[in-house]
Amino acid sequence: MSQTGFLQDLFSSIAERGRRLLETGGEPDGNTDLADLAESLYSSLGEASGVAIADRLLRAYEAREPARRLAFFKLLADRFGIDPEEAVAAAQAYRAEPTPEALERLHHAAEPRRQELIRRLNLAPGGTAKLVRMREDLLAALPDHPELRGVDMDFRHLFQSWFNRGFLEARRIDWQTPAAILDKIIRYEAVHEISDWDDLRRRIDPPDRRLYAFFHPRLVDEPLIFVEVALTVAIPATIASILAADREPTDPAEVRTAVFYSISNCQEGLRGVSFGNFLIKQVVEDLRREMPNLKTFVTLSPVPGFAAWLTAERKREGGLVDAEAAAILAGLDTEGWWTDEARARELEPVLMRLAACYLTRARNGAGKPLDPVARFHLGNGARLERINWLGDRGRDGLRRAHGLLVNYLYRLEEIERNHEAYANTGNVAASPAVMRLARSRPSREAQTVTA
Amino acid sequence: MSQTGFLQDLFSSIAERGRRLLETGGEPDGNTDLADLAESLYSSLGEASGVAIADRLLRAYEAREPARRLAFFKLLADRFGIDPEEAVAAAQAYRAEPTPEALERLHHAAEPRRQELIRRLNLAPGGTAKLVRMREDLLAALPDHPELRGVDMDFRHLFQSWFNRGFLEARRIDWQTPAAILDKIIRYEAVHEISDWDDLRRRIDPPDRRLYAFFHPRLVDEPLIFVEVALTVAIPATIASILAADREPTDPAEVRTAVFYSISNCQEGLRGVSFGNFLIKQVVEDLRREMPNLKTFVTLSPVPGFAAWLTAERKREGGLVDAEAAAILAGLDTEGWWTDEARARELEPVLMRLAACYLTRARNGAGKPLDPVARFHLGNGARLERINWLGDRGRDGLRRAHGLLVNYLYRLEEIERNHEAYANTGNVAASPAVMRLARSRPSREAQTVTA
Amino acid sequence: MSQTGFLQDLFSSIAERGRRLLETGGEPDGNTDLADLAESLYSSLGEASGVAIADRLLRAYEAREPARRLAFFKLLADRFGIDPEEAVAAAQAYRAEPTPEALERLHHAAEPRRQELIRRLNLAPGGTAKLVRMREDLLAALPDHPELRGVDMDFRHLFQSWFNRGFLEARRIDWQTPAAILDKIIRYEAVHEISDWDDLRRRIDPPDRRLYAFFHPRLVDEPLIFVEVALTVAIPATIASILAADREPTDPAEVRTAVFYSISNCQEGLRGVSFGNFLIKQVVEDLRREMPNLKTFVTLSPVPGFAAWLTAERKREGGLVDAEAAAILAGLDTEGWWTDEARARELEPVLMRLAACYLTRARNGAGKPLDPVARFHLGNGARLERINWLGDRGRDGLRRAHGLLVNYLYRLEEIERNHEAYANTGNVAASPAVMRLARSRPSREAQTVTA
Amino acid sequence: MSQTGFLQDLFSSIAERGRRLLETGGEPDGNTDLADLAESLYSSLGEASGVAIADRLLRAYEAREPARRLAFFKLLADRFGIDPEEAVAAAQAYRAEPTPEALERLHHAAEPRRQELIRRLNLAPGGTAKLVRMREDLLAALPDHPELRGVDMDFRHLFQSWFNRGFLEARRIDWQTPAAILDKIIRYEAVHEISDWDDLRRRIDPPDRRLYAFFHPRLVDEPLIFVEVALTVAIPATIASILAADREPTDPAEVRTAVFYSISNCQEGLRGVSFGNFLIKQVVEDLRREMPNLKTFVTLSPVPGFAAWLTAERKREGGLVDAEAAAILAGLDTEGWWTDEARARELEPVLMRLAACYLTRARNGAGKPLDPVARFHLGNGARLERINWLGDRGRDGLRRAHGLLVNYLYRLEEIERNHEAYANTGNVAASPAVMRLARSRPSREAQTVTA
Repeated sequence: MSQTGFLQDLFSSIAERGRRLLETGGEPDGNTDLADLAESLYSSLGEASGVAIADRLLRAYEAREPARRLAFFKLLADRFGIDPEEAVAAAQAYRAEPTPEALERLHHAAEPRRQELIRRLNLAPGGTAKLVRMREDLLAALPDHPELRGVDMDFRHLFQSWFNRGFLEARRIDWQTPAAILDKIIRYEAVHEISDWDDLRRRIDPPDRRLYAFFHPRLVDEPLIFVEVALTVAIPATIASILAADREPTDPAEVRTAVFYSISNCQEGLRGVSFGNFLIKQVVEDLRREMPNLKTFVTLSPVPGFAAWLTAERKREGGLVDAEAAAILAGLDTEGWWTDEARARELEPVLMRLAACYLTRARNGAGKPLDPVARFHLGNGARLERINWLGDRGRDGLRRAHGLLVNYLYRLEEIERNHEAYANTGNVAASPAVMRLARSRPSREAQTVTA
Repeated sequence: MSQTGFLQDLFSSIAERGRRLLETGGEPDGNTDLADLAESLYSSLGEASGVAIADRLLRAYEAREPARRLAFFKLLADRFGIDPEEAVAAAQAYRAEPTPEALERLHHAAEPRRQELIRRLNLAPGGTAKLVRMREDLLAALPDHPELRGVDMDFRHLFQSWFNRGFLEARRIDWQTPAAILDKIIRYEAVHEISDWDDLRRRIDPPDRRLYAFFHPRLVDEPLIFVEVALTVAIPATIASILAADREPTDPAEVRTAVFYSISNCQEGLRGVSFGNFLIKQVVEDLRREMPNLKTFVTLSPVPGFAAWLTAERKREGGLVDAEAAAILAGLDTEGWWTDEARARELEPVLMRLAACYLTRARNGAGKPLDPVARFHLGNGARLERINWLGDRGRDGLRRAHGLLVNYLYRLEEIERNHEAYANTGNVAASPAVMRLARSRPSREAQTVTA
Repeated sequence: MSQTGFLQDLFSSIAERGRRLLETGGEPDGNTDLADLAESLYSSLGEASGVAIADRLLRAYEAREPARRLAFFKLLADRFGIDPEEAVAAAQAYRAEPTPEALERLHHAAEPRRQELIRRLNLAPGGTAKLVRMREDLLAALPDHPELRGVDMDFRHLFQSWFNRGFLEARRIDWQTPAAILDKIIRYEAVHEISDWDDLRRRIDPPDRRLYAFFHPRLVDEPLIFVEVALTVAIPATIASILAADREPTDPAEVRTAVFYSISNCQEGLRGVSFGNFLIKQVVEDLRREMPNLKTFVTLSPVPGFAAWLTAERKREGGLVDAEAAAILAGLDTEGWWTDEARARELEPVLMRLAACYLTRARNGAGKPLDPVARFHLGNGARLERINWLGDRGRDGLRRAHGLLVNYLYRLEEIERNHEAYANTGNVAASPAVMRLARSRPSREAQTVTA
Repeated sequence: MSQTGFLQDLFSSIAERGRRLLETGGEPDGNTDLADLAESLYSSLGEASGVAIADRLLRAYEAREPARRLAFFKLLADRFGIDPEEAVAAAQAYRAEPTPEALERLHHAAEPRRQELIRRLNLAPGGTAKLVRMREDLLAALPDHPELRGVDMDFRHLFQSWFNRGFLEARRIDWQTPAAILDKIIRYEAVHEISDWDDLRRRIDPPDRRLYAFFHPRLVDEPLIFVEVALTVAIPATIASILAADREPTDPAEVRTAVFYSISNCQEGLRGVSFGNFLIKQVVEDLRREMPNLKTFVTLSPVPGFAAWLTAERKREGGLVDAEAAAILAGLDTEGWWTDEARARELEPVLMRLAACYLTRARNGAGKPLDPVARFHLGNGARLERINWLGDRGRDGLRRAHGLLVNYLYRLEEIERNHEAYANTGNVAASPAVMRLARSRPSREAQTVTA
C-alpha cells in the first residue's frame, strides 16, 4: 500500500464510483454548466458523490477555453460569498448572548461559502494541483477584474493553510535525483536560465554546488521553490564566475562562503503564499551543520526593477538625476555600451549611486522597498551588503538592471532584529559601504521616493 | 536532509535561537505566566521569536500539574474570543459596502483570536502532538466546564483542517513493521485487548490476518486509528473463532470474506475528527484489488451501549420489556448465566429481539442511533446484517452487551445510498432478518424510543 | 549506518589506517614497484595492512600509462601461477592417501597464486570496479599476448563467482531513475545510439516503453547490462518504427508483443561473464505477470557480422555466391544503393537468402553460429523467426548488415528444449520461413560453412 | 520490480517451469533418490531444468528425517570428490607443457566435483539458506564421521567466498527495526539471554545502548552475527550494571567508553566463516565518527572454558594447582559459595590468578589460546585488559567461569601490531596488571600448558 499512490488511487476510485452514481451521461466538456455543479457540490452530503461532483467540476473547468473560465470566478464572487444580512444578524445575536453556538453561527456566516466549495474541490483526484492552476488563471484575470479580489483572498487563505510550512519537505536535488524532477528544475529556473542537462549537472553535481527545493505531499514531484547555492572562498561579484562551464571546483577545505545565486518560485498559482524565507533559513542551518567552516551566507541577486525605475526617474522633474548625471546616463542608450570601456568607467559611479538610492529609498505604496528581490531578502532579515558593477552581462541582467547584481548578507545573529525592524518600520538594513554610496551626492536626495 | 527529521531539527533550531533572543532566564515551569506568553505570541512579528514563545508556552503548560491547566483554557475562552461589538460593526460595514476588504475585516472579526494563537503554537517543535494532548485535557474538563465548549470547537475546527484526509497515510502494519509502532498498537487496542507480543503477532503475521493504520506526517510513528481484519470463508459469529491462539490459518484460495473485527481510535485528543470511515473504505478498496476473490466485507462489532440501555429499559414504565420478558431477563442477574445452558436458551430470543430494537430504534437527542458503534458504521453506509448470540464471552463483552456481537455489512453498491438516507433521515439500513427480529413482538414497540 | 556507503567508508578507513602503517612515504605513482607490492600483498597477514597494500597496488597500477601496465600482467603470468612440481607431488600424495588434508593441499597447489592475489585486491576501496577496469586492459592486450590467456581465465573465473546471478539486482529504469544512472545509460547504449536526454526520455517514459538493467551491490550505480523494450501490437520489422520521435504510443489495452530492440553490455571488463540471458528471462517473467495480454516476446536485433562475412564469401571460391548473385551484389558497392528502389528490389532476394544462410549455417571454430548476436539469442533458447529487409537504414546498420534486422522469438515452452539442443549439438532453431529462405537456392550450399 | 522479491520470484518461477519439464510426478519426499538427483544436477545443461533439479534435491533432503541425511554427505564424500589418477595425469601434463589449457584442466581435476554440485544447489529458490542449514547437519555429524571432513572443507570454502565481507551489510538494530528481525535477535542471543520484548527494548532503545548486526543479501532478514554495545563512563566490571532493568541511562555528554558486552553468532551453519572480527571494527569506526568523545573500546566478555579447564587442572598431577590452592578451591563445590562472603574473599586471589594463567598460557593443539572467546578477541588484535571478580552471577556465568568476566581492550593504534604478533607467534597481548596476576605465584608455572 504505497502511500501517495494509494490515496491517489483511492480518490480516483471513489470519484469513479460516484461518477457512476451521477449518471451524468458522458465526459464534462467546455459547455458543462459549472453553476449547477458548484451548487450540487456545496450541498452534497454523500462522500463519493461529493468527490465525483468535485472531479466533474474541475474537469469541466479545465475543458473550457481560458476566456470562458472567467465566468466561473464571477460565479464564485457573486453567488458564493456571504449573506450580509445573515452576518449582521449572527453578529448581533452573538453580542446579545455570547454562547459557543452563537459564535459558531457567526463564524460560519462570516465565511464566504466559496471557502467550503474550494475545500471540497480539493478532495477530487489531483484536486490540489488543479486548484493551484485555477488560481493562476484567476491571478491573470485580476488586473482587469478587481472585483475578483475577494475570491483571490479566499484562495490564498486556504492555500496558506494547506501549504503551511509544517507540511513542506526540503530535499536536496543532485545528480542522484530522479530525472522527472530535474526536468522540472530546468523548466522552472527563472533567474539564470539552465540551457541543458549539462548546464544543470554543473549546478548540482560538483562538490561546491548545491540545489535545495521544497515539496508538498499533495503535489507529487512538483517543486514549489528552489534555491541554487555555490560554495566559494569569498563573496562573488559576478554570475559568470559562478556559472562558467570550465571553472575549477573549489576545494571543500577552503570553502568559507555559501552563495544563494538563484531562487525560483515554481508555482505561479501559489503567489503570495510565502515559503522562500523559510527555505533559505533551512538551507543555512543545514549547511552550517554540515560544514562548520562556512562563515558567510550571502546572495548574488538580480535587481529586476532598477532599469524601469531609472527610466522613470530620468524623466521625473526634480528627481535623483541631475543634469550632469542625465548626460552621462544618455550613454546607456547606445547598444553595447558595456563593451566600451571608457563609457562604462564613466557610467559606473552614477549608476552605482543611483542603484544604492533605488534599493535603500525607493518605496512602494505599502512603504516597502520597490524592488521585489530587495523586499524578499530584507523582509527575511538579510542586509544589503554590496552592489556589483556589471555582475551580470546576460541579456536580462542588462535589460532590467544595467548589469548590476547585489549581495544580500544573512547574518544569523542579526536576522531576527533586522526582520522585526523591517516589519515594524520598513527600515532597510544596509552595509556602511552601501549607505555611503547612497548618500554620496547630491544632498537633496535625502527624502524617500515613492513609486 | 531527511525530511521529517530535518524539519524537526529546524523547528528546534529556530526555537533555540529564538529562545536565546527571549533571554528569559531559565526553563519554563509550572508557575510560568501563560497569559503573558499567550499575549506575546499572539502579537509577535518575528518568526524565530514566535516559534520560541510558542515552544516556551507549550513547555510551561506541560509543566503545570493537570489541575492548574484549566486556567489556560479559561484564558482562551475569556480573552481570546472575538469582540462582539467589532463583529457587529464589521458585519454592518460589509452590508453597507461589500468590498473585499470589508469582507476580510468581517472574516477576521468573526474568527476567535485563539484560532490564530493555536496556529502559532502549532509551529513549535512537536507542536501538533502537544496540542493534541492539550485537547485531551480540555475534553476531560468539558463535562464540568461547559463554558469551554467554544474553545473546544476551535480546536476541533483546526484539527479538522490539519488532519484532513488528504494528509493521512494508510500503512499496512505487519511483522515487518518497526517495533516502535507495534508497541503502540498493543497499547492502543481498545476493543479486544492484545495481551502480549505473541498475541500481536497472531493478528498481523498470518496470511489471513491484516492490520491497517492511518498516520499523519506531523505525528511521526503515532497511529491515529487502526483496523484489524480477518480473512475468512464465511461471516463469523464469535470473536473467539477469530482470536483463538491455536486456529488453523485459512487457505488464501478459499477466502471470500474480510472481517473488520476491531477498530481503535488512538488519539483521544482527536475525538470528533473522523477518519475511521475513510480508513475502512480504503482498506476495502485495497483488499478488493489485491484479492478479487473477496466478495463480502463485514464487521464483527461490539454493542457497547446495549446493557446500559437494557437496564434502563427494564425499569421504564411502558417500555419494550413486558412482564414475561422481565421475568426472563431477571436471569441476567445471576453471575455466570451464560454457562447455564437452559437459562441461556431461555434468554436468547428475548435478548436478541431487544437488541434488534435497541439497534434499529433507540435514538439519541440528534435522532441518530443510540449505540455509538452502530452510529459509526450506519453513518458510513453499512447495513446492520446480523446479531450474534454470545459472540463475545469476554468480560467486557458480557458486561456491556450481554455477550452479543453484531455484523455490519459494507456493500459497495449500497454504501452511498445508505449513507445519504442515514444522513438525511436517520434511516437505519438493516437486513430482513434483523428487521423481522425487531418486529417480532409485541406490536406496541413500533414507535421510536429516544434515550 | 547507510550500508553501501558504510562499507565504502570502512574500507577507506581501514586502508587509510593501513596506509599509515606502511609509512611508504607518498602517493604511489607510475613508477612504483608493482612486483614488490604484489608479493607483500600475497604474504600479508594483517587485515589493515593487507587492504592498504591492495589499495596502493591498484593506485600504482592505475597511475601507470597503459603501455606499461602489461608488465603487471606478465608478472601475474610468470610469478603467480602454480608450481608444477608441487602440483604433481600433491596429486601423487593424494593418490597415495586420499585424506581431506591431502585433498586440500592438492586443491591449493592446483590453484594459481594470482587467484588469491586478485581476491585480496578486491578488498581495497573500490576494488571490484578497479579489477573490472584492469581486465579491460588485459582483454585489449590479449590478442598480441596469447601467453596471458591463463591470467585472463583466472580473472574470469573469479568474476563469474563474484557476479553470480544471485547477487544481481534487476531494476526498471524510467523517468524516475536518478540522473546519475540515466547518464550512464546514454553513454553505454551500444546498438542504437541515444542522441540526447529527449531521445532517452522517449525510450523510458511512455507507457509502451521499458528499460531494465542489472546492478551489482559492489558496483554502485553502474549498470552491468540493460535491455530496451517496446510494447507493440505486432512484431515490428524496422527500428525506425520503434524510435520515431513523433510516433503515437500504443494503447496498453492493445499491446500483445514485447520487443527487445536493444541489449547493451556496459562493462567490457566483464566480457564472457554472462547475465544477458538471465536478464531477458527475468524481464519476460516480469512483463507476463504485469500484462497478461502479452503473448509474444521477440527481439529486433542487428546482424553485426553479416556484411563482413558476405565480403569474404564474395571472394571465396566455391562459396555461396554464384556468378549471377555476384553480379547483383556488386550493386552494394554504390553509395546509397538502398535509396535506389530498382536496385534494392533486385538485391533483396539475394541478400535475404544469403543472410538466412549466414545465420543458420555459418559457424565459428567452436561449431556455434558465426554471428555473435545469433549466438547469444539462440544460446538462450530463442528461435530465429524472421529476417527484415532494410529494417535499419542507420549508418551502422547499413555498414555491418546491409540494413538487415532479425527477430528472434522467445517462446517459453520451447526455450529449454532449444537451449539444450543448441548446447548439445549446436542446432539452430529457425522458423519454417527462414528455413525455406536458407534453402531457397542453390543446392550446393547444403554444407556448413566454417569461418 | 522489487529486487530481492523479484529474484526470489524468478528463481521460483524458473524452478516451477523446470519442475514441469521434469515431469517427475509428485512432490519429493524422504525416500526420493538423492544420488540420482545429484548426478542429474551435476550433468544438467539447461538452466531451468538445473534449477528445478536443485530445488527438488534440496526439498527431498529436507524431507528426510535427520538420521537418513547422513547418506547424502557420504554420497558427496564418496562420489563427488576428485579422481586421483586424473589429478596426477593433469599435474604431469601441466608440468610437461604449462599451457593455460593444461592449467585449467589441472585446476578442474583438483577441485572436488561436489563444489560444482553445491554451487548449482545454491541457485535453487532459497538455496543459500538451505545449504547453511545443511551444513549444520553436517557439522553435527562430523565428530562421529571424521571421513566427512573433506566435504565440510568444501562447504566452508564456498561459504567463505559467498559470504565474503564485501557483501555483508552492517545495520543498526533499534526500536525502529522490523519486529521480524527483533524476534530473531531475541532467539539468537547466546551470551546473556534476552528474557522478553521489554528486556530487548532496554538493550536497543535507550540512547546509551546499541546493537549492530551483519546481514547478507541472500539471507533476507536473517542476522549473521550481532554485537550489543553499552556506552558508559568507565570500563564496567559486572554484567549486572549493564543489564539492570532500573538503571539510569548515561548522559551522552559523559560517555567515554563503548562496551561490547555480548557477541552472538546466529548461523551455526556458517561456523568457521568469520566476520565477527570485521563487525567489531566497523562498529568501532562508526561510533568514533558519531561520538568523538569515545576514548575507550572494550569488551565485557565471558570466559566459557575456564571452569572446565580448572576442573581438569585440579586433577592434573604437577599442574598449576598446588595443595594450598586445591584446599581453597574445594570451596567451589559448595552450592552458592559466591553468596558466602568469607569464602568468596578466600577464593578470589586463587581464582583470579588461575584465570590469568588460563587466559595467557593455556593453549590448544594449534598453539592458540584454549579459551574460544580469548582466541577471538586476541586474534582480532585486542589485548586482555582486566579480569573481573564475580562479574557475572548468572547461572551460566557461574557454571562455566565461576562468575568471572574479562575486559578485552581494542586500541586502534595497537590492533594491527597485536594481530600480526598473535598470528605469527601466538603471542597474547595482556595488560601489565593481568601479566602480574598470571605470574603472581608460584614460579614453576612458567611453561606453556597445552590442553
